[in-house]
Formats: sequence, structure tokens, C-alpha cells
Amino acid sequence: MDESIRLYTSAFGAELVQRTLSETDGLEAAFIRTGEGEVELLRPTHEESPVGKFLSRRGPGLHHVAYAVTDIDRALEEARAAGLELIDQEPRVGLHGSRIAFLHPRTMGGVLTELVESK
Amino acid sequence: MDESIRLYTSAFGAELVQRTLSETDGLEAAFIRTGEGEVELLRPTHEESPVGKFLSRRGPGLHHVAYAVTDIDRALEEARAAGLELIDQEPRVGLHGSRIAFLHPRTMGGVLTELVESK
Repeated sequence: MDESIRLYTSAFGAELVQRTLSETDGLEAAFIRTGEGEVELLRPTHEESPVGKFLSRRGPGLHHVAYAVTDIDRALEEARAAGLELIDQEPRVGLHGSRIAFLHPRTMGGVLTELVESK
Repeated sequence: MDESIRLYTSAFGAELVQRTLSETDGLEAAFIRTGEGEVELLRPTHEESPVGKFLSRRGPGLHHVAYAVTDIDRALEEARAAGLELIDQEPRVGLHGSRIAFLHPRTMGGVLTELVESK
């Protein structure tokens, strides 16, 4: 994690916004501001967490893409109505403190996709 | 490609900006505007192209991340100076008509990374 944070803050000159540990999700996250977007660096705290399993199976790399939405209840309802497979049937509180929900890669062209309600 | 474009434009309500075919790169690309960012959908035109090989090996999913930079010559020089491994030693013209350069995943935490000079 330290090395990855250095990569983005030093080589790229991006800003570390927040670094947080969630035992519930089994991961440490660092949020790096990159212009209008944000890179979320993830480190599993144990191998059996979802991110731990991903890392064991795929190695380091891109994990998911997140989109900001203004109304996550409506966005999730629209996703459901469009026939997309939901991982979270209802929004839940994410690492940021924001309300989030994940869509399954199966109906998203192989891309794990997150909706994040912007504050 | 049609199905993926429909997913983003219909289910997500995003706008298709451009659809282009490059025989040189062996791929078709569709650019979808998502707020401040852009999703670039890629379809290889033959299996032996870089994207074709990626798709055979990994299946559909996230391929790379691109960052807009104002001066790509300087950005590439800084990446080189920071010890990052470059795929393109010099900027080249990409599908968009913009000047681009790729950084190797090996020194980017497993993430294939593209720099794109914004016009």
C-alpha cells in the first residue's frame, strides 16, 4: 500500500485524500485524487475477503469502476429495471461514508461496477 | 460492441460520442461520455491484436485506465525519470487523434496506464 501510494503521489503528483481501514470489508483503502476522478487503492487485510480472493486469482490490477450518482435509490432501481444483476439489492454505507451499491460483472461486460451517491 | 453500447447508452443513459475502426491497432472503439470521464469500449478485429490477446487470456473486463495530461512530452519524461517502464518511448497518435503513450503495467501495480494529451 505504501509503495502504491508513493507511485501515485510522487511519480504522478496526485494527492492522497484519505486512508482508511475496514475490518468489516477486510480491506485497507487509500483514495487518491486524480483531476475530476479518484483512484481507490485497495489492500486486503486477509486472503478470504472479496478483494483478497480477487488478488489471489487475478494478481494486482484493475478491480472495479465506480460512478457518482445523485440518487442511488433511483439509479439502483433503474439498473434493476434494465435487467442488470445487482450484488447489493439495497444501497449500503461504503468506506467513504457514502451510500454505495455494486452491480455484478456478469451483466456489465465483465466489469465490476459500483454506484456511489455523491454528497 | 452493439450490445455494450446499448448497455451504456440505454441502461445508464450515457452518450455515445464516437465510434471508430482502426485496422492499424486491430480494434474498433466506441467512446461513451460518463460525466467528466469517458468509457472506451474496445473490440478486437482479429485475435492476434494486443486487445485480441488480452480478451483471449482474460475475458471481457477492464483493460486500461487513461489520464488526460496537458503536456504529454513532459508527462512521459517525468514517468521515465520516476523509473516507470514505458511501452511507448515517444508519444504517438491514438484513435481519438490525440497524442497518447502507454505505461507498462509492470511498474504501475498491474494497471495498464495510458496518458492522453487533451486538446
